[in-house]
Amino acid sequence: MAGSTFGSVFRVTTFGESHGPAIGCIVDGCCSGIHISLAEIQQDMDRRRPGQSRITTQRQEGDEVEILSGVFEEITTGTPISLMVRNQDQRSKDYSEMSGLYRPSHADYTYQAKYGLRDWRGGGRSSYREAAGRVAAGSIARMLLRQECSVEIVAYVLQVGNIRGAVDITTVSRDIVESNIVRCPDPIAAEQMVEAIDQARRDGDSLGGIVGLVVRNVPVGLGEPVFDKLTADLAKAMMSIPATRGFEIGEGFDSVTMRGSTHNDPFVMRGNSVRTSSNHSGGIQGGISNGEDILCRVAFKPTATIMRDQATVTTAGEETYFKAKGRHDPCVLPRAVAAVEAMAAITLADHYLRQRSQT
Amino acid sequence: MAGSTFGSVFRVTTFGESHGPAIGCIVDGCCSGIHISLAEIQQDMDRRRPGQSRITTQRQEGDEVEILSGVFEEITTGTPISLMVRNQDQRSKDYSEMSGLYRPSHADYTYQAKYGLRDWRGGGRSSYREAAGRVAAGSIARMLLRQECSVEIVAYVLQVGNIRGAVDITTVSRDIVESNIVRCPDPIAAEQMVEAIDQARRDGDSLGGIVGLVVRNVPVGLGEPVFDKLTADLAKAMMSIPATRGFEIGEGFDSVTMRGSTHNDPFVMRGNSVRTSSNHSGGIQGGISNGEDILCRVAFKPTATIMRDQATVTTAGEETYFKAKGRHDPCVLPRAVAAVEAMAAITLADHYLRQRSQT
Amino acid sequence: MAGSTFGSVFRVTTFGESHGPAIGCIVDGCCSGIHISLAEIQQDMDRRRPGQSRITTQRQEGDEVEILSGVFEEITTGTPISLMVRNQDQRSKDYSEMSGLYRPSHADYTYQAKYGLRDWRGGGRSSYREAAGRVAAGSIARMLLRQECSVEIVAYVLQVGNIRGAVDITTVSRDIVESNIVRCPDPIAAEQMVEAIDQARRDGDSLGGIVGLVVRNVPVGLGEPVFDKLTADLAKAMMSIPATRGFEIGEGFDSVTMRGSTHNDPFVMRGNSVRTSSNHSGGIQGGISNGEDILCRVAFKPTATIMRDQATVTTAGEETYFKAKGRHDPCVLPRAVAAVEAMAAITLADHYLRQRSQT
Amino acid sequence: MAGSTFGSVFRVTTFGESHGPAIGCIVDGCCSGIHISLAEIQQDMDRRRPGQSRITTQRQEGDEVEILSGVFEEITTGTPISLMVRNQDQRSKDYSEMSGLYRPSHADYTYQAKYGLRDWRGGGRSSYREAAGRVAAGSIARMLLRQECSVEIVAYVLQVGNIRGAVDITTVSRDIVESNIVRCPDPIAAEQMVEAIDQARRDGDSLGGIVGLVVRNVPVGLGEPVFDKLTADLAKAMMSIPATRGFEIGEGFDSVTMRGSTHNDPFVMRGNSVRTSSNHSGGIQGGISNGEDILCRVAFKPTATIMRDQATVTTAGEETYFKAKGRHDPCVLPRAVAAVEAMAAITLADHYLRQRSQT
Repeated sequence: MAGSTFGSVFRVTTFGESHGPAIGCIVDGCCSGIHISLAEIQQDMDRRRPGQSRITTQRQEGDEVEILSGVFEEITTGTPISLMVRNQDQRSKDYSEMSGLYRPSHADYTYQAKYGLRDWRGGGRSSYREAAGRVAAGSIARMLLRQECSVEIVAYVLQVGNIRGAVDITTVSRDIVESNIVRCPDPIAAEQMVEAIDQARRDGDSLGGIVGLVVRNVPVGLGEPVFDKLTADLAKAMMSIPATRGFEIGEGFDSVTMRGSTHNDPFVMRGNSVRTSSNHSGGIQGGISNGEDILCRVAFKPTATIMRDQATVTTAGEETYFKAKGRHDPCVLPRAVAAVEAMAAITLADHYLRQRSQT
Repeated sequence: MAGSTFGSVFRVTTFGESHGPAIGCIVDGCCSGIHISLAEIQQDMDRRRPGQSRITTQRQEGDEVEILSGVFEEITTGTPISLMVRNQDQRSKDYSEMSGLYRPSHADYTYQAKYGLRDWRGGGRSSYREAAGRVAAGSIARMLLRQECSVEIVAYVLQVGNIRGAVDITTVSRDIVESNIVRCPDPIAAEQMVEAIDQARRDGDSLGGIVGLVVRNVPVGLGEPVFDKLTADLAKAMMSIPATRGFEIGEGFDSVTMRGSTHNDPFVMRGNSVRTSSNHSGGIQGGISNGEDILCRVAFKPTATIMRDQATVTTAGEETYFKAKGRHDPCVLPRAVAAVEAMAAITLADHYLRQRSQT
Repeated sequence: MAGSTFGSVFRVTTFGESHGPAIGCIVDGCCSGIHISLAEIQQDMDRRRPGQSRITTQRQEGDEVEILSGVFEEITTGTPISLMVRNQDQRSKDYSEMSGLYRPSHADYTYQAKYGLRDWRGGGRSSYREAAGRVAAGSIARMLLRQECSVEIVAYVLQVGNIRGAVDITTVSRDIVESNIVRCPDPIAAEQMVEAIDQARRDGDSLGGIVGLVVRNVPVGLGEPVFDKLTADLAKAMMSIPATRGFEIGEGFDSVTMRGSTHNDPFVMRGNSVRTSSNHSGGIQGGISNGEDILCRVAFKPTATIMRDQATVTTAGEETYFKAKGRHDPCVLPRAVAAVEAMAAITLADHYLRQRSQT
Repeated sequence: MAGSTFGSVFRVTTFGESHGPAIGCIVDGCCSGIHISLAEIQQDMDRRRPGQSRITTQRQEGDEVEILSGVFEEITTGTPISLMVRNQDQRSKDYSEMSGLYRPSHADYTYQAKYGLRDWRGGGRSSYREAAGRVAAGSIARMLLRQECSVEIVAYVLQVGNIRGAVDITTVSRDIVESNIVRCPDPIAAEQMVEAIDQARRDGDSLGGIVGLVVRNVPVGLGEPVFDKLTADLAKAMMSIPATRGFEIGEGFDSVTMRGSTHNDPFVMRGNSVRTSSNHSGGIQGGISNGEDILCRVAFKPTATIMRDQATVTTAGEETYFKAKGRHDPCVLPRAVAAVEAMAAITLADHYLRQRSQT
């Protein structure tokens, strides 16, 4: 069983390679009656797109999205929604060297070993370009969640290399995130991050970082124990994004050194609602949303593509060196924000529709 | 769609509540011809069982496992394998107070809100007793992996509270893990951990920690891009275990502050095999195993059950206090090792069988 | 991916072999709040059970069903419901001859070829005893459908061999069906059927037949185009029952010789409801229920087990003869009614819960 | 959970409405290394296409298929294969009358009732145009099966209205099927069928019929008991095709009047292979292929679209009459052959890949 589908009820299947004719997705299971704005999808796509700013790769990808099915007079009909983007800037020659060797810490070797062959042009299926299909599907998910229950999803860059932003998770918004090119809500840290990324580029090297995520107005009751806990499905969603290395929710790894008496969230009544007076749990208890904000963080490794000589082997098994050429991101974080938001939206839309049938 | 099934080909469905008649699982999709040792399953079950040592809860659970189907003359037949454990020590009265309030940072409130009712006896479905079904299924998975390709899976306690063990991941084995009651391969740290757990118990409080995992002899090619990457499915598997708060692979969150030039793993030839000279990636690249050891870590929060007064609300919406009674673990880590190993085994067995059909 | 699970949201996984320790099922995805009557499940089980009457096999199977999980104080909790029946009358010696040869038109050869081994005791997994798990799950499904929307499901024996009953599908009820041992609502045909079955037994031979099914009070809108049409899933459900050879809905194969002008069902208003004035479609149009009665029929082949010498081969590839011994049904139809009802209930419960999330 | 995906390992998801921008499919799970001929896919598409001959609708649909992903240098890479056809002849005005009423025995009413709205142009998603996505996916499946194990799949028109062809299932081939426009291998019956279809058209009426299917060189061991029997999945596959009303395998409904002693298939040795001397079972026993030819038949109702006044109701609930205009098939059988072959190929490819992981 192959792995290009995510979700059980709101099901997203992506397709496409970096340098093939097109990329895109099918969303099957979006409920009928959701108003779809093509312009809003395009806006989301543009946040993932390369060439947005001087700190992202200068590759130009049009990413002009087209809706092929499932939407009639701007409303979802309950049938599969297919979204497609033609690939335009297909300079395969930049990549021809790749066909004969394995780039370190890329997916070249594992794809070749698994499938016996690979589309080596630009990383093929393992390219970050595949995320365009996720972002398109994520836009649909976000519209569903907003129209059905006012859910609000904001991802932001929390850390780049050693520089960590100071972020107020109660006020952070997409506007604030979009106020600088690195997408860190802390403007001072943001400037330092831009500098650090520029420096890494000058060094022919790359940086990692952390994306933070806050989700507000989450309905109580999302998540299906025992395996499809909301925590577990969010972890899977995030760890399916290229270059991710870690996931944590609420206090995450910091909870390890806390005691139960400080970590537990006391219940209180707020009007007629059961709420918690603290939110160390990050909005999920026993795998089910409790109505508090969902708070999590995703670690990204430094980009594998660097402009330095690295030891590797050829497909024929001979040792060699490889040094990347062309247009690449020294740090994927600013563009990863769109993917994190998309995967969060898809996961939540799926669980929102799932819980309808269980209660 | 409910969530009690894990896996696509090697599919595990668990059932059972803490104080119902029985718990267990069905494994559908285990290939035929695997030799099954009931004694070995029982051994694994005993590692999860309460009452093993003075640092775990003194509740007595028999956990005597029975194979109901799918095995004929000790060999799997390719039909569903059902495994069952009767619940024995069902002192519901210890828990009767639970029926009227929500224990902080437990699943009481979210289950009630989601389902409109709940089996409040001992946490019902959200009890760690559910993990017995996982451990039984994990034993089957481990036998499959060992007989088919000599895979070796070792989980161990790396950290309890502030105490972190020094662990040599190249040599750690189950024997070493079992050499002390806290299951930390570092004997000095282990002693400190036991003391810390004892102290927490005396304080009526609880501790969190980290479980480390190493998997050896992993076949190259496991993992199904783009969503069912091995990394993503391991993350989901681990984050579905109760009390988990974080997951990381390879360098994990530490990779954030590394540069590409130090994080990338150079390829080298070792005999006729393509290998890497370092293993910052933790054995998975592009979501597919590359043949190096899989290395990951799972963060557990401090146990929610503490012997102290905590503010909470009743199911009728009145503010009250709750203080746990009875027999509870001040730290789940020593018993969590069995669950982490089981979920790793299930995930790998599933991907092992999945890749057979894709190449 | 193995095949012991049916359904997407109301998911039934059965386990067990004819002569293993136990058989049963897990139902995952039954919504919470359904009242469960153990006595009613047992009643349904007894209709499938051998030894009910002189025209069924005289094997005694206790079929005493036990609920292991998912039900608290007689109400479903939303967690997996596990149901188990111990196997009691395990006279393996009656079957020992089976281990060395392939019984014609049984599953012996195909199981051996597929899995490399088989549990040969009493047909193992391919025994009609497996249907006990289906019937138990079907009882749960029926309670859900009845409590949520008054759905009524009645299956009956329409034909045995050449004898076809005259059945009024608008009035047929379980009481009428249960009024004779062959379960045919036409009492005159029923007597002839009993005689025919007796004659077949005396001849050491067997008979086939047709089970009819009517479902009333079906909500409009069940069925998920394009592949999971209600028609398609009913067909699959029925053709998964052992010994089935054909399925038809509405006019079925007779529609082939009708013209559109006579087959089409005109729409009419009945009060505020859109209804059809005829029901050639059998209650499903475009794969979705239209609120009219669902009408379908299932063809069963004559039982493969006969008390006559038949040419076959041994597992070693030598030609031989086989003649069944022991206690067998010369006609499975009277006991198949319970399986057809169960599969109909499971299919409809699944689609009932599925449509909740789609609209 | 919506229903536009078929298959567990070889998974086909179709998308598209009759008069939307495009239709197509994604095939996820096709193994790598299969040679793909675009010309052959196009040939298959042309068999489903309207306007092929004087007995099919004269609508012109280009059906020019494009491969968007998953194939590199004409070889499958193991990644999702996306296939798309632009819709060209979108004369929505022919259908505008449809928006306000429900055509009898079409899916207009059930879609409206289920989803609350519908794309009424040309039947939207329920149009037979959707089958183009199935046929494209079926071509991929057929190539896989032919290259991996020489499987041969032939569907043919067996009956139209009252006219039944005499077909030799041991010799029927695609060439023979393609030798006349009605696709019946019996040339005399074929002529009568053409005349009958012409007559129905002149009458403004429509005809049903039966498609027969034979599959040769089927590997032993395909089919996953107990629910995903090959019989069950073939039944579902066929009954998911628009206008189908019945399915039977082997002797089908005729087996009902046979006795076990004549219906059972004796085993014999042929060389080193276990075979059967008759094939009443139609190649599947216990839900698993036994290596004999798979033989089944599918009943199609007369086309719902007729050029006669029919009573119906408007979407506002008023009684009215409807008479179809424009270009329609009086009998779908000649074009249905392509869909039956496609669904057979998809089902078998799926089970072929599934069994790899189970044994």
